Amino acid sequence: MATRGQDALFLTSPQDIFYVTGFLTRFWESPARPWFLVLPKSGEPLAIIPEIGVELMSHCAVGEIRAWPAPVPGDDGVSLLTECLTSLVPEGGRLGVPMGAETNLRMPLADWQSVRQSLGQRHVVDATETLHRVREIKSEPEIEAIRATCGIADAAFDRMPELVAGAATLETLFRRFQIALLEEGADWVSYVAGGAGPEGYGTVIAPASGQPLRRGDIVMLDTGAVRNGYFCDFDRNFAIGRPSDAMKRAYAVLDAATEAALGQLRPGMTAKDAHRVLSEAMTDAGGVPAGGRLGHGLGVALTEWPSFTPRDETELRAGMVLAIEPGVEVGDGTILVQEENVVLRDDGPELLSTRAARELPVIAP
Amino acid sequence: MATRGQDALFLTSPQDIFYVTGFLTRFWESPARPWFLVLPKSGEPLAIIPEIGVELMSHCAVGEIRAWPAPVPGDDGVSLLTECLTSLVPEGGRLGVPMGAETNLRMPLADWQSVRQSLGQRHVVDATETLHRVREIKSEPEIEAIRATCGIADAAFDRMPELVAGAATLETLFRRFQIALLEEGADWVSYVAGGAGPEGYGTVIAPASGQPLRRGDIVMLDTGAVRNGYFCDFDRNFAIGRPSDAMKRAYAVLDAATEAALGQLRPGMTAKDAHRVLSEAMTDAGGVPAGGRLGHGLGVALTEWPSFTPRDETELRAGMVLAIEPGVEVGDGTILVQEENVVLRDDGPELLSTRAARELPVIAP
Repeated sequence: MATRGQDALFLTSPQDIFYVTGFLTRFWESPARPWFLVLPKSGEPLAIIPEIGVELMSHCAVGEIRAWPAPVPGDDGVSLLTECLTSLVPEGGRLGVPMGAETNLRMPLADWQSVRQSLGQRHVVDATETLHRVREIKSEPEIEAIRATCGIADAAFDRMPELVAGAATLETLFRRFQIALLEEGADWVSYVAGGAGPEGYGTVIAPASGQPLRRGDIVMLDTGAVRNGYFCDFDRNFAIGRPSDAMKRAYAVLDAATEAALGQLRPGMTAKDAHRVLSEAMTDAGGVPAGGRLGHGLGVALTEWPSFTPRDETELRAGMVLAIEPGVEVGDGTILVQEENVVLRDDGPELLSTRAARELPVIAP
Repeated sequence: MATRGQDALFLTSPQDIFYVTGFLTRFWESPARPWFLVLPKSGEPLAIIPEIGVELMSHCAVGEIRAWPAPVPGDDGVSLLTECLTSLVPEGGRLGVPMGAETNLRMPLADWQSVRQSLGQRHVVDATETLHRVREIKSEPEIEAIRATCGIADAAFDRMPELVAGAATLETLFRRFQIALLEEGADWVSYVAGGAGPEGYGTVIAPASGQPLRRGDIVMLDTGAVRNGYFCDFDRNFAIGRPSDAMKRAYAVLDAATEAALGQLRPGMTAKDAHRVLSEAMTDAGGVPAGGRLGHGLGVALTEWPSFTPRDETELRAGMVLAIEPGVEVGDGTILVQEENVVLRDDGPELLSTRAARELPVIAP
C-alpha cells in the first residue's frame, strides 16, 4: 500500500476478509448483506458489518467494528462506509479497491456508485496488485493448512474402490465421495465435480447426474474440500475395469506433463512458462494438450491467480501454492485431466497432494 | 422488462443465471472467471461465457453461446460483451442491470467500467425490481423442489439423537450432520451453522469449533442443503439432557411466534407486517424478540428477499417461499432461534418443512 501510495484499502470479498482478519463463516452463502473491511495505511483493520456478524467478528483480527442492522432498505451500510472512507482518505488521497482480474465488488453496484460519489476528488485506484502480490505468497502455517486439506482428499481418494463399489450412477458416487471427505476430516466440501465415460469426459465442471457408471468408463473426481478455511483442489482418474490402450496412453501423457512441471518449475519463471512446460511435455509424449489453463494458484479460494495460460506473465515466486493441471484431448470433444497441488520452493515444487498413481489405476467393476 | 422499457437485461450472478437457463455448477466457487447472460427484450437468452463452460451450457435454455478462452488478461470477455450489448440496446435505449439490494455484479469492476463507457449514451438502469418481482414467485415445480430439499433436512434432523450420541464437540456434530444430509439425498450442503450453550448461543452464523457439547446445552443446527439447485433453510433446537425452565419458556415463545405467523400471514400483507406479527407474538408470550430480521425468502439461494424487518415494505404474494425465523433473547447476549420454511398460499402459509416439535426436544446426554 505504501509503495503504491494508497491511504486505505477497501475489501468486500469473503477471501480477502478472511485473509486479513480470520473471519470464517459459511454465511457468505447468503447474498442478502454486504460486508466491508477497510485497511488504513497504518493501524488496525476496521470492519463495517451487519449486526448479525458482530459476535463472530469480535474474535477476529480487527481493531474496530462498526455495525448496522442490515438489511436496511435505503442505507445498507452506505453512510457508515462513506463516513469511514472519507475520514481515512484525505481529499486528493488514494483509496485502493480490487477491481482487476479475479475480483468483484461484493456489494450492490448502486451503493458503490453512491459511496464513490461521496468520495469526491479522492482517487479510487485498482488495488488488485497490492492484494495479489501479498496473498499469492503463502506463509508456512498457510502451507501446512493446505497440506492438511490435501491429506484429507488423499485419504478420500484412497477409498475410491469402496466408493465405486455398487454405485450405479455418478450421483451416488459424488455423494459418497463428499461423505468420505467429511469422514476424513473436511470441515465442509465447497467443490466436487467430475465426469465419466469410455473416452474421458466432456466437461470438468459438471455437477452429478444420474449417468450410469459402466465397466470401461474412466471416472474422474475433482474436489475443493475445506479445512480451517483452506482449500485443496485436485482430481484423480480411475478406470472401472480394464482401460483401453488409448486411455492408458492418454494417462501417460498427463503423467509426463506432471513430471515435467514437478521437475522444471522454478521461481523466476512465469505462469506462461509453466504452460509451455506442460504443453511441450504433452506434445513430446504424443498428446494434444487440451485448451484452457493448465494450472493455477489456490489457498483461501478454490482457485487463485496466476493462470498457466499462454498469456499470463505473472512471475512464479517461492511460497506460491499451485495446482498443476495438465489436460489432454482423447476423443471427440472429450479429455482427461490430472491435477496435483504443490508449493513452489526455491529448488522447485514440493508436493502437497500425494502424487497420483503413475499408471491409470483400475477398479474392479 | 417491457413495462420498465428495458431493451435487455444483463445478469452475472450464479442464482440469476441458474434461474433463467438452468445452468447448474459448483464451479462458481472459483472466482477466476466472470460469466455473462444477456436477455434481449424478445428472443432467447444469450450466454457469453468462458470456454470451460460451453459444454455444460449447451444443455441449458439459451439461444446462443459466445465463448472466450478465459482467463485472458486485458480482455476477459469485455469486447464480446460490449459487442453484444451495443447491438441489442439501441443508442438512447435502456440496459437493465441488477444493482440494488441483495445483488452484486460478479465481474471485475474495472471491466464493468470499460463496458459502461462503451455503452455511451445508452441508459444503464437498475433492474433489481424486474428480477425480484419475477424470481420471488415460485412455480409449482420450484415449490416441489424446495419441499424435497426440506424433506432431506427433516430426515437428517430426525436423526439428531444418533448424531449427538458420543459427539464430543460441535465440530464432530457439524460433520456428522452434513454426512446425514448427504445420506438423506442432498446433492451438496452449502450451509451449516449452529451453536450450543446452556442459555442458547451468541451467534447463528458461526462455523464449527472444538467447543465441547455438554449436558444441559441447548444445541442448534441450521442448514442450507441443496437438491437440484434448490435450497432449504431452517434450523432445529435440541436440549442435551433436561433443559431449564427458562429454556422451555424461551422455546415456547418461539413456538407461539411461529404459530402466529402460520396462522396470520396472508398475501397483501408486507414483510414489515410479518415482522410485527412475529414480534408481537413473542412479546405477548413474555419474550423479548431478538434484533435482526425474523424471516426472509429462499429458493435458488440460501436467502432471498424480502426481509421480515420493521423497514421492509415488500408485499407478500402467493407463491413466495419464505423462512419464518423468530428469535428470542434468552441470556446475556444469547438467543434461541427457530425456523420453518413455507410457501405462501392465498389462504396462508403451507409448511414445506415439518413443523418443529412443539416443546423443546430432549436428547439423552
